[in-house]
Amino acid sequence: MAWAYLSRVAEGPSAALSDLISRVGVLEAARAVRQCDLPASLLSATAQRRGTDCAERDLELMARLGGRLVTPDDPEWPAWRLLGLGQLDPGRDPAATGPLALWVRGAVPLADATELALAVVGARCSSGYGEHVTAEIAGELAGRGWTIVSGAAFGIDGCAHRAALAVEGLTVAVLACGLDRPYPAAHHRMLERIAETGSVVSEYAPGVAPLKHRFLERNRLVAALADGVLVVEAGLRSGARNTVKWARCLGRPAMAVPGPVTAAASAGCHRMIREGEALLVSEAAQVVDEAGPLRLSMPTGTSAADHLDGPQAAVYAVLPQVGSRQPAEVAESAGLSVPATRAALAGLELTGYVGSDHSGWYRTAQAG
Amino acid sequence: MAWAYLSRVAEGPSAALSDLISRVGVLEAARAVRQCDLPASLLSATAQRRGTDCAERDLELMARLGGRLVTPDDPEWPAWRLLGLGQLDPGRDPAATGPLALWVRGAVPLADATELALAVVGARCSSGYGEHVTAEIAGELAGRGWTIVSGAAFGIDGCAHRAALAVEGLTVAVLACGLDRPYPAAHHRMLERIAETGSVVSEYAPGVAPLKHRFLERNRLVAALADGVLVVEAGLRSGARNTVKWARCLGRPAMAVPGPVTAAASAGCHRMIREGEALLVSEAAQVVDEAGPLRLSMPTGTSAADHLDGPQAAVYAVLPQVGSRQPAEVAESAGLSVPATRAALAGLELTGYVGSDHSGWYRTAQAG
Repeated sequence: MAWAYLSRVAEGPSAALSDLISRVGVLEAARAVRQCDLPASLLSATAQRRGTDCAERDLELMARLGGRLVTPDDPEWPAWRLLGLGQLDPGRDPAATGPLALWVRGAVPLADATELALAVVGARCSSGYGEHVTAEIAGELAGRGWTIVSGAAFGIDGCAHRAALAVEGLTVAVLACGLDRPYPAAHHRMLERIAETGSVVSEYAPGVAPLKHRFLERNRLVAALADGVLVVEAGLRSGARNTVKWARCLGRPAMAVPGPVTAAASAGCHRMIREGEALLVSEAAQVVDEAGPLRLSMPTGTSAADHLDGPQAAVYAVLPQVGSRQPAEVAESAGLSVPATRAALAGLELTGYVGSDHSGWYRTAQAG
Repeated sequence: MAWAYLSRVAEGPSAALSDLISRVGVLEAARAVRQCDLPASLLSATAQRRGTDCAERDLELMARLGGRLVTPDDPEWPAWRLLGLGQLDPGRDPAATGPLALWVRGAVPLADATELALAVVGARCSSGYGEHVTAEIAGELAGRGWTIVSGAAFGIDGCAHRAALAVEGLTVAVLACGLDRPYPAAHHRMLERIAETGSVVSEYAPGVAPLKHRFLERNRLVAALADGVLVVEAGLRSGARNTVKWARCLGRPAMAVPGPVTAAASAGCHRMIREGEALLVSEAAQVVDEAGPLRLSMPTGTSAADHLDGPQAAVYAVLPQVGSRQPAEVAESAGLSVPATRAALAGLELTGYVGSDHSGWYRTAQAG
């Protein structure tokens, strides 16, 4: 009840209120807010909504929606995900702090749902190309056990959620408004499906409207709840850039998919790549390389051997994927003299591409 | 005659022969080569073709084609362009040295033709998209006085040359074979047109065939003769990457145009951007930013003000392009309170976006 009351009073991120709660406890913090027993800074910040106590009604409403208020006391609180937000400087941006609590509708405990997660965001005015790439990458990762986090907007966001739903993967939608007013309204049904299998999350109490500054605040949660942020299509003024900014603040990898330079929908991605704000990625494997646990690599379309050229490339190319060959056989296949082949093999061994034993020369595992 | 003789003997880059010429002069170098009066390294390098002296025939043939042999003694020798090649380490790559001399067909002195130049290279198997972007960027730059340097290959190369020809701009084709055997043969007519208005260049004597290693050697001249290298479409195994490698060796900017990640023809560009080998560019203005003289910027689609957000963005947006406004007017247009507007203006002034005088607040020129 105290959390629900404070969640509505704060209406969004409040570093001062979070501080107070962690110092004196939530019950005492609620009492202090109610009775104006506060330092001046908090007094003015809470003055407007201090009198509004509809905690009971809010909790009941949420329960009817099948939701709950998840607080830092709960086992499902995604504490380590949100840790980074608590270490930012709210002096520079008032939103640079963790949420007080989170209103959640969903079948899976939030901490579990966001254990391995990728945020996929982008243009509302997406193109067929952007939707295709989103479906490919989000679908592949969701199928591999990644949760897809996004903002439920039209365009890339919705496409990312749907790609996860389509492969029966987990997806988390973070809203910029109360959970009782799904936004955008046309995504009502999609949000219901997400709530059934994944999670719909907001730091705003029921009834709170989706205003512009709340989208910016919401973006920080999208970035915080994931291992990395992927932007697929973004115009020059896209909100995706703001999500990328939060990812960078939080030390999470920010990635962007390029597209035709003739498409305005990719101009924001190109700018972020060009200015070093996001790394160019083309496929799911590259996302895993950046954001994956232990940064373990998945097999990619390219291999380390693509960097070879000249006789080394020719020699490497004719070595079998499995098993080994004698230099004379390699020489014949590669169309090189035996001495040239031996030299190339020696060079490849030095750089770790090949090895040799009694059976001959073979490709090493590392070079794939 | 001595240059022509040595050009055929060397058949491509030879740091040792260039050294010898610069030490003893071209006549003495030719005599020494003819009479095997050489250090061991040069002896073996020149052994094979030392006996072939068809300098007179080569020069006559070239004259009949309307061409000439341009040597380091000639005023049109692009000395400062080739300077960088002379400072590389030929021990690591035998091609890492300047050309001995250049066979040239063309109306414009080579040094003049390459004074302000962009190399545009890319996939032979280009797509409609790649050809469109090549035509746009090469055409715009050629129209602004840039020479377009390329390799006359099918696909992007040919498209770049044609874009320059179409706007009556200058273009230089660098071949990997003798100028008497235009390659590819289907570009014979295009090469004739280039020779009429621009320049067709090769370091190989007449009759020399376009073999694989000569394309790699040729690529270094493409990079050396330009202020930067732009790759438009390249597969993962494209030769364009080799040209980019030379540009980087020479300290010239390397740029690549992104495209759909679903297109194999852009995969090489994406890899080069991803791995930091090339900078992502979307338009001619960005090429000028990177490769242009004094790196002067052309007006671009975006502006510094795109980096603003919140009240500062709102305030900046309502300031007129020309002229100034009072804070109260700005506040009204921006939908902010006057104090909030004053604060935003002060912030914008600190970062240089706006200034103020007796007439009010105005956008500064620098922020465009």
